Amino acid sequence: MTHQNRATLWGRTIVDELAAGGLDAVCLAPGSRSTPLTAAFDAHPDVTVYSQIDERAAAFFALGRSRRTGSPTALVCTSGTAAANFHPAVIEADHGRVPLVVLTADRPAELTASGANQTIDQTALYGDSVRWFADLPEPAPEDRRLRSVRTTVARALSTSTGTPAGPVHLNCSFAKPLDPDPNAEPIDDERLESLLAQSRDGPYVRTTNGTQTADRGTIDSIANALEAAERPLLVAGPADPGVVDDGTDWQKTLVDVAEAIQAPIVADPLSDVRFDPAVASPTICGGYDAYVDEVPAPDCVLQIGDAPTSKTLRHTLRDASCRQFLIDPAGSWREATFTATDLVETDPRHLIDGLADRLVGTDRADERNQRGDERDTWLETFVDAEQVVDDQITGATTTETLETDPLEGSVLRTVLARTPDPSTVFVSNSMPIRDADLFGRPRAADVTVLANRGASGIDGIVSSALGAGRATTDPLTLVTGDLALYHDSNGLLALSRCDVEATIVVVHNDGGGIFHKLPIEAHDPPFTAQFKTPHGLDFSALAQLYDFDYHDTSPADFESTYRAARESDGTNLVAVHVDAGSSHRRREELVERIAAECRR
Amino acid sequence: MTHQNRATLWGRTIVDELAAGGLDAVCLAPGSRSTPLTAAFDAHPDVTVYSQIDERAAAFFALGRSRRTGSPTALVCTSGTAAANFHPAVIEADHGRVPLVVLTADRPAELTASGANQTIDQTALYGDSVRWFADLPEPAPEDRRLRSVRTTVARALSTSTGTPAGPVHLNCSFAKPLDPDPNAEPIDDERLESLLAQSRDGPYVRTTNGTQTADRGTIDSIANALEAAERPLLVAGPADPGVVDDGTDWQKTLVDVAEAIQAPIVADPLSDVRFDPAVASPTICGGYDAYVDEVPAPDCVLQIGDAPTSKTLRHTLRDASCRQFLIDPAGSWREATFTATDLVETDPRHLIDGLADRLVGTDRADERNQRGDERDTWLETFVDAEQVVDDQITGATTTETLETDPLEGSVLRTVLARTPDPSTVFVSNSMPIRDADLFGRPRAADVTVLANRGASGIDGIVSSALGAGRATTDPLTLVTGDLALYHDSNGLLALSRCDVEATIVVVHNDGGGIFHKLPIEAHDPPFTAQFKTPHGLDFSALAQLYDFDYHDTSPADFESTYRAARESDGTNLVAVHVDAGSSHRRREELVERIAAECRR
Repeated sequence: MTHQNRATLWGRTIVDELAAGGLDAVCLAPGSRSTPLTAAFDAHPDVTVYSQIDERAAAFFALGRSRRTGSPTALVCTSGTAAANFHPAVIEADHGRVPLVVLTADRPAELTASGANQTIDQTALYGDSVRWFADLPEPAPEDRRLRSVRTTVARALSTSTGTPAGPVHLNCSFAKPLDPDPNAEPIDDERLESLLAQSRDGPYVRTTNGTQTADRGTIDSIANALEAAERPLLVAGPADPGVVDDGTDWQKTLVDVAEAIQAPIVADPLSDVRFDPAVASPTICGGYDAYVDEVPAPDCVLQIGDAPTSKTLRHTLRDASCRQFLIDPAGSWREATFTATDLVETDPRHLIDGLADRLVGTDRADERNQRGDERDTWLETFVDAEQVVDDQITGATTTETLETDPLEGSVLRTVLARTPDPSTVFVSNSMPIRDADLFGRPRAADVTVLANRGASGIDGIVSSALGAGRATTDPLTLVTGDLALYHDSNGLLALSRCDVEATIVVVHNDGGGIFHKLPIEAHDPPFTAQFKTPHGLDFSALAQLYDFDYHDTSPADFESTYRAARESDGTNLVAVHVDAGSSHRRREELVERIAAECRR
Repeated sequence: MTHQNRATLWGRTIVDELAAGGLDAVCLAPGSRSTPLTAAFDAHPDVTVYSQIDERAAAFFALGRSRRTGSPTALVCTSGTAAANFHPAVIEADHGRVPLVVLTADRPAELTASGANQTIDQTALYGDSVRWFADLPEPAPEDRRLRSVRTTVARALSTSTGTPAGPVHLNCSFAKPLDPDPNAEPIDDERLESLLAQSRDGPYVRTTNGTQTADRGTIDSIANALEAAERPLLVAGPADPGVVDDGTDWQKTLVDVAEAIQAPIVADPLSDVRFDPAVASPTICGGYDAYVDEVPAPDCVLQIGDAPTSKTLRHTLRDASCRQFLIDPAGSWREATFTATDLVETDPRHLIDGLADRLVGTDRADERNQRGDERDTWLETFVDAEQVVDDQITGATTTETLETDPLEGSVLRTVLARTPDPSTVFVSNSMPIRDADLFGRPRAADVTVLANRGASGIDGIVSSALGAGRATTDPLTLVTGDLALYHDSNGLLALSRCDVEATIVVVHNDGGGIFHKLPIEAHDPPFTAQFKTPHGLDFSALAQLYDFDYHDTSPADFESTYRAARESDGTNLVAVHVDAGSSHRRREELVERIAAECRR
């Protein structure tokens, strides 16, 4: 790449600054207008380049990677509708607090509304879904302008990991030539070096994000409330990306707090608490979706993370008239029943440390334990209920039972119990995440369970999973429904293009099984044609198209098929065939059996 | 569907009003929040329902249908990222002036920013890309509120076909119950009938869009300028959807005008003029992309439609210092070289009628013809050049020549020459539309050639084509590249779900052939990995997945394979394998041969 000109200088400056700020990966979609960025990324030694053809899949791949790592991934596309294909993932990144740096190439400003080809108005294309939008100035070899670009890029990168983390959007206009054209007026070497040398040693601006923390008085008052309660409940909702698998042992500290006050932790499958190597504690509950409305109501609640997946839990909290603390580092409201009494803006890890200081291993803890009868009973109720769940789920998911009464949820039980330690499990929305919630038993293993619960779409699931899988060397399992697999079948191209392997489990009930949970099931038409939408697709053809191995199985045979798939080389897709309607009835019966036992 | 409640009343009212206003088709994507709309559409006798699982594909299918018919198609999705998947097609509809009525279901207002599931801010989600955005009021059985809904819906529908036509967006909030729940408080029959009876006989508001017309003086001055010119040129750019195949014979009138003043018509393949049953005139030129910069420059230009596909033509117009009239019904600027001298806001058909009144068959015409030597020579130049193009293209596309020198463009030549009369041909962006431009010879047949040239993305091509095909009983051929086919492979599900058949021709050069036209080709890396992006996909697996027939062929054997595919039942995909690099060289040589002959 010689013959540097304005456009290539701009591309190199943007990419240099991102890399200096620590950005280490980019998803590029091919296109002409983005040539200066693409060429600069491709040439940069410190940035891993993933190339994707479908921008929607590219964006979700980047999202999955950032969700797994908590650090930003860049996205590049050409001008026009390409940028709009990023929109679904940008919205998920906004709601899911996933850092992304979206770079859209654009035509020069004078071409807007001129009838020029592939030219749309890209200003604020993603509306309020991005933390920051900026139109970068048009390329010109001028010191101040370049300094402004470096400053903007550095700040955009740090904004993406601020509180809350999320997507940022830089729109980058380029005029031709877009390549290092030997006939264009180049910038001479000396001048170029001086312009590029602005990069300093490291980023042009070192940006440091602050951390929201609660003051001592606030922490004390929460500790006091928990301490005074007879039935304190800790709710660990879905964790934000920067918190997941962050290398600290905040989960251990949370459990210490729970044990000190004898409080159950209802741990969402996405909380990074239910599956954690540091913790094997009776306080950690995973089966509450089946019984939490059958046991006494809590009298003090502390929620960290996002609103929990379990609707039963959410309704139970709604109906519990008591002090309920919502803990959120961004001060957002994260429970849609509008019952919480206290919103505390703080990093949950800071609060947990503070609570541990106050509640764990102190004289007051001993004192508390002496008068702790009521509390012991309270925790015991949950411990007993978890045993009921364990027994009932085990009974319902033996091979023999599944042969006569197949149950979709057994798939999630097996995956979450059998996936290696460590590993990443990506779970689709709709039924898989609900089954992960009900059937995923707590496990002291380094299993990172992820889902796109920001906006909970069924789009981009394959790409998100493969992006998450590519982010570490952990083995990856994706559990998805057939609709979500179809929706993002293009994402499977990343297996070869982005060099990632996965065990893909598709719970194949030929349509939207979740609609059996909804009242519209009673109305057919339109139920089958417009809601369940059976499509009759045989996914073995996808295996042929994208070159991986394919296996059909049943819930009864799933465990052995899954093991074989995990243990064989390359990517394997396991299609578990089930009837959604009857599986749904059996699921309801199982929940009712658990509830009935817990009522006794 | 009994037990009507607020939500179902709302759904029925919205759908009734759309149908009363003439809307006759909808694409529904499955989801829960949209239940009231989905159920009402499904039950309505006058609206054809297409069900699609991938919202991106659904939106492009609707777009294709509306592009073919000029009349609006509705789109329905659930809340959340589903709506963002419509965004690419909404942008294309905006720039391509395609009427769409986008109905996004939403959760009640109080759930925004509450952490509620699948809840995003859908207000103005598509920014300025829609002609109108409205949040419908929340359902309540109140007369005024219902009247407001009917009025808004009626107006939104007519706005979608205003000038310019385009997408409108109605955001529809619903609280549960969403189905006709027998336990919810129903609206009693008498009250319901009275509320629904608002529908009047026909639409609640009869809306009549006006037509922009130029006054007599303006038309006269244009006629005078054309009459006075020695080298008048008529440019028929891509036609707006309402103008395509509109049942009038404006093309015939345009030719009458051209013949009266001996002006060549450079007719874009998307102009609805190059391929039209009413016209077989020497004034219609199709090969100008190869020679228009080699013949004398025009001294007066009249452009109808959008900016032409041919870059050679656009640059020739840029360099011609003369009076250039842009005719546009919406008064938009539609040429990005900023050379035109007059922008006239008028329906082109009205103007053409006016010009014909002034210029055709009058005494002045006779007078003009007597002094018309210079003009005769001018038109003759184009007639001769077209003959050169004919001869050269014929020579370059014989079976014998193609066996040794395969050329992608031969595919477009064959399709446009051999597709039945009548038929619809949908052409992808990137190389296919450019090859349709260069290789598609004018033909007096009812061949409707369409492409997504609003924003010219390679997304949604399959769906757009199938939507266009489903709109009439004409046979459909889609010509696409392999990247566009992959990008919208999900769209193929419409073959079975939406009951449409097509002959799909994929010019398969394993990657982005168009990049060979760009200077970045000289820089590898990054050329192959980041621009051409070969993917190695064997599309026969798509045929297996979506259940259609598949054929591999070469440019030399394409004509017979295409005929066989067209003549066999059901959908056939013909993959024409070519090497993009060498085909590009041959294309350049062909253009140079034509140019050289025209220079002589």
